[in-house]
This record gives sequence, C-alpha cells and structure tokens, in this order.
Amino acid sequence: MIQFSINRALFIQALTATKRAISSKNAIPILSTIKIEVNPSDITLTGSNGQISIENTIPVSNENAGLLITSTGAVLLEASFFINIISSLPDVSLEFKEIEQHQVVLTSGKSEITLKGKDISQYPRLQEVSTENPLILNTRLLKSIIAETAFAASMQESRPILTGVHITLSQHKDFKAVATDSHRMSQRLITLDKTSADFDVVIPSKSLREFSAVFTDDIETVEVFFSASQMLFRSDYISFYTRLLEGNYPDTDRLLMKDFETEAVFNTQSLRHAMERAFLISNATQNGTVKLEIEANRISAHVNSPEVGKVNEDLDVVSQAGSDLTISFNPTYLIEALKAIKSETVKIHFLSPVRPFTLTPGDDEESFIQLITPVRTN
Amino acid sequence: MIQFSINRALFIQALTATKRAISSKNAIPILSTIKIEVNPSDITLTGSNGQISIENTIPVSNENAGLLITSTGAVLLEASFFINIISSLPDVSLEFKEIEQHQVVLTSGKSEITLKGKDISQYPRLQEVSTENPLILNTRLLKSIIAETAFAASMQESRPILTGVHITLSQHKDFKAVATDSHRMSQRLITLDKTSADFDVVIPSKSLREFSAVFTDDIETVEVFFSASQMLFRSDYISFYTRLLEGNYPDTDRLLMKDFETEAVFNTQSLRHAMERAFLISNATQNGTVKLEIEANRISAHVNSPEVGKVNEDLDVVSQAGSDLTISFNPTYLIEALKAIKSETVKIHFLSPVRPFTLTPGDDEESFIQLITPVRTN
Repeated sequence: MIQFSINRALFIQALTATKRAISSKNAIPILSTIKIEVNPSDITLTGSNGQISIENTIPVSNENAGLLITSTGAVLLEASFFINIISSLPDVSLEFKEIEQHQVVLTSGKSEITLKGKDISQYPRLQEVSTENPLILNTRLLKSIIAETAFAASMQESRPILTGVHITLSQHKDFKAVATDSHRMSQRLITLDKTSADFDVVIPSKSLREFSAVFTDDIETVEVFFSASQMLFRSDYISFYTRLLEGNYPDTDRLLMKDFETEAVFNTQSLRHAMERAFLISNATQNGTVKLEIEANRISAHVNSPEVGKVNEDLDVVSQAGSDLTISFNPTYLIEALKAIKSETVKIHFLSPVRPFTLTPGDDEESFIQLITPVRTN
Repeated sequence: MIQFSINRALFIQALTATKRAISSKNAIPILSTIKIEVNPSDITLTGSNGQISIENTIPVSNENAGLLITSTGAVLLEASFFINIISSLPDVSLEFKEIEQHQVVLTSGKSEITLKGKDISQYPRLQEVSTENPLILNTRLLKSIIAETAFAASMQESRPILTGVHITLSQHKDFKAVATDSHRMSQRLITLDKTSADFDVVIPSKSLREFSAVFTDDIETVEVFFSASQMLFRSDYISFYTRLLEGNYPDTDRLLMKDFETEAVFNTQSLRHAMERAFLISNATQNGTVKLEIEANRISAHVNSPEVGKVNEDLDVVSQAGSDLTISFNPTYLIEALKAIKSETVKIHFLSPVRPFTLTPGDDEESFIQLITPVRTN
C-alpha cells in the first residue's frame, strides 16, 4: 500500500496541471477522479475527460519534489476535493499513506486528514499511441500557432469537423495549420528545420487550448506522436493525449486568392479599438454589422443600430491604394483576427463588397493569412 | 441642451462609483439608467436601485476634471452601456453634446458616437434627508466597523430585521454597531470624540457593504444624516442614501455574559487555517460540524464525514486556562469571525458545550466582541 512524502507546493503544481483534463461534471463519474500511481522511482498522476488525458510524472530525481517513496501502489481520489485538501495543509511537505480499503491518510504539520479513495480497476484505460519517430516542435512556436488559428474554429457542433484545427505536414517539412468556422479562416505556415513523416489530422481546438495551458513556456520542446484516432504531445514529465476529429476537412486553399482591388494598411491596435467601439453599438442589433467606406485618402467606419445609436469614425490609415469600396461585416471577426496579429501594422486586401477580404501582418505576408467573409447589405 | 467637455478617465471614475447603486436587472426599467444633470458649475450623476441611491458631483473647480460646461440640461442614459461606450473612446477627453429628442453625441478623437437617451421626467425623485447637525465619522473607522459587523447579519429574508446592522448612539457619545443572524453575533463599540444627538437605526448590511466600496480611503471623513426611513452618508462630492429597515431589533445585550469556565488564546491565522481544513471535510456532510476537544495542555479539532473522510488536528495554543470541555459548531462561523479580527491573537471564552462562546481580539477585550452558538451533538 502506498506511502510517500513530497514537497507540497510541487505536488499541488503537478495536480493542478493534471486537473485540466478533469471535469467535475463528467457524465462518467469515475472521470472526476485523479489516478495516483506510485512506482519505485516516480509518481504518475493521470486525469481524463474522455476527450483529452494528461499524465504527469514526478520522478524521485527531481530535487524540488523532495520525493521519498517508501511503498508503491495506486489509488483514485476525487480530483477537486483532493487538490483543495492538499492546498489547505499547513506544512511545506506532506506524507501520503494508504491504509485499509483505499483509505488515504495525509499528514502535514499537526494536521491529519483521512480520505476515502477508490479502486483503480474502475478507471478506463487510455488509448495507446506508439512513441516512435517523434515530430519535435518548439513549444513556444506551437503555442503561437495555436493562438493564431484555434480561435477561428467553429464553436458549434452542427459541423463537428469545423470545431477542429486542420494540421498537415507535406513534403516532409511544410507544416500548415488552418481553422475556419465558414465565416472566417486563419492559416499559419511554417517550414520545419528537420524533415519528418507527412501527416494530416484535425485536432479539436479545445484540446489545443488546453495544451497551451498545460505546457508552460519553460518546456522548450515537445514531441508529437500520432495514431489513427489519437495524438500525443509529450515533454519530459507530461504526456498530453487528445482524440482526433474524424471526417474530411474542407479544402481551404481554394478560398485564398492573390487578386485584390483595394489595399489598406492600418495600425493593428488602433483599428482593433475602433472595431471594439463599433461592436458596442452593432451588438445592440441582431446580426449587427459595421460598414467600412474606403474613399481616396479617407477610410471611415459606420454603424447604425436604430434602437440605441450610431458610430461614425475616421480610421487612422498607414497607407492605402486601389479602388474605392464599401463593405460590411461583423466587427467581432475583425476584432478577433486583429488580436491574433502581433505585428504593429496589418495589411488588408479587398476584392469586392461580396468577396472575402484577407488580413496579413505588416511584417509577414507569406506565412500567416486570415480571411473574413463580408455580410451583404442593401 | 447639454454641452460639455471633460477628462475621460475622471468621468469614468465618477460614472463607475455611481453605477454601484444601479442594477441592470432592476424590475423598474428606468432604474437601469444613470441621470446626468449639467448645472452651470458642476455635473451631478445619479444612480439608484430603490434601496440605495448615489449622487456624485463633479465641480468645474476640480482641476483634474478638465470640465468645460457650455450649456446645461439633464438626460437619462442606459448606465452600463453608456459606461462601456465612454470607456471605449480613444482620446484623453471627450465632448458630450445633446442634440434633438434626448439624443447625445459623444466626440473623442476621430470617433463620433450617437446615443439615444430618455427624458428625466420619468426618473423617480429620491427621498430627501434633512442635512442639519451632521454626525461626523472618520471614513476608515466607519469602514472597519462595517467590516467587523456586517458579515454577521442574516442573508435570509425570513426575519428581515436581521439582514441589517443595528447602529445606535447613546449618552451622546457611545456608538454601538451590532449584527446577528441568530447563530452568531458581532458587536463593536466606540466612544465618539465629539458628542452628537442619540439615534437608533437598523441599516441593511448590503447598503453598508456598498458604502465601503463607494467611499474610498482618501475621503477622510463622512457626514451622516438621518430621516425616519432613510439615511445619508455625505462627503464633498458623494451623497449616498440608503433606506432603513423598519421594526424592532432584538435585544442583543442579554446574550453577552462575563462568566466563563474555559479560556483559550490562539494565533488568529493559525486557528483560521485549521478551521478552513476542517470545513473542507465538514462541508461534505449536511450541517457538518467540527468538534473542539479542550483538555489540559492540549486542544484538538475533529471532523468526521462518513462519506468522504475525517480530520484530526492538534491546534497551536498560545495559552489556556480553566476546565476541560468538548464543544461542536459550524466551522464557517468561526472562520468568518476570525477573518474580522485584525489582532495577531484571539481569546475565546467557553462556558459550557451548549452555551454560546465569545471571541475577542487578543489586544482589545472591551470594544469588539463576537459570539458563536454551538451545535448540540450526541
């Protein structure tokens, strides 16, 4: 039966990261528990919500863990409750000791708390992913690709495939991530330094957001593995599994065209703030839109929501070229697109009032492109 | 029709303070608006939820306001919406101009936003409180009295009078604030430096909490006025009205007794943390309690919630005297009582397992006393 002592702060950190995979309201009650497996040289914490699973390993060799394992074993404990208890303990370290019938006694300072656990035989087995030939990615780069694309995926389950981000590797080095909810699209390209086996997967955008929260920036690289239905992101101590979405992702390449009639370059922040003002008024009307009027030497934004009021604003323009144009769209899409752009300026290309317009960062027109579909108005 | 220009940051600050009296979900729709009255030498903002009302005055003489009044008048605007709009504007200042039919045009930088307002004739009249012979209180002292008592008032409307804090002045200088929900009680006494007219009122604890949020610590003193059904707290620029609760407040003096059999002094924070651990386990059971066992040279806390687990903990004791005793109570009441005590230590007096016990700060046994009723267990 389990017995170990550990640094409390480090234990809380590992529990909290693992808990990101655990939902306290899961339809399968056993998935609200955390699995604690104590091996001779490490402890592995496991959490899962059926979609994503996280395994977090604390090795005896980690000096900050102050981990002393006296006896091995495994038990399930109610995740939220257990973390609250551990967080409340008084001392810098704690002792964890299993007594009869999956009961666990936690001792820290003068406090002794006894908790009821469950048998691990009830816990589902995580699907396995073969860990051969990893694709190695820089963690920060992967997280920035996620931040640039995942928001554009659909939130609605009417077309489940669109709730994912389509990630492909072709020619062994051309990495592409693309997401669309059919109103807007975001695509990021990178060229890998090292070649790897080609792949084509659709990853739930929710899983990718969780990945970004779990893999902190101090984790320099992450290994990526695939099976037919699952994917594994792995660092030294964390394994993050997510199921993949099944089905064919629509062909997004045909949406991107190089033609344009009108080009405008804006300061990214200034345009975003103007759109946030526009949104406050447009949002008062169902499907409210903002109208952009592009004339020679003047670009202005206009909203009219008869019940509450209107906005008229001349936008700060860095440069503009091409034909005059009037185009209407949902300002939310432009606000979210601008949030994803780190560059000081943004270049927008328009073709016609009824064709999607494209956004690229002012300092990078090749590798990051977004597209927003206008709204037809009369 | 209204026309003025003003510093945006200062305007937002005054609007936000006034909005504390405004509920966006008020049953009376007009109370979701803010009243803006522009006079020759100041602007007054008014908000009310029917229970409390706040008037906030921005005088032309306030240099930080950059207030330039061109034309006077009054209008009602949807409070939350208006504050969001003002917060979104781009420039350091803004111009506010009323055009036809209560329409307001806000101009800031290159942005121009038009909003629909309402006629002030629909706005209810705030009850008046005569402003003669003020009681003058130090704001920080009044806020600390509120923090020490208001939490002990009842949250339930079954006995409305207990949702208030009973505040009295007797002998022209003995100020007393007391609150009880019938399970616990908190009483704070002060002696005023200057004599004032005696009073006896019950103020809703919710109003007092709002008062503490609205009157920032830089407001040194506050003037207090009473009418039969209302009360006014006033500083240079803010008038805060609250209705009073009607009815007789129970006699709480009879609950306080000087007798005790057992005395224990604890470190306030250490006892609070022990009770927070106890609460985590006791809370798993309905009406869960913690049991305190006081023996010679040892005080321990025990919780047993059969479904989830148990706690056994030896408490850190500064000193103890008197008979042995075992007493059970809801740890929430002790946690909240300890949160209200600033002193490093707390002295607790017990009389018997079925009689309320009292808490006083280690450094002040006279002016601040709290009382908690135990739970009978077998």
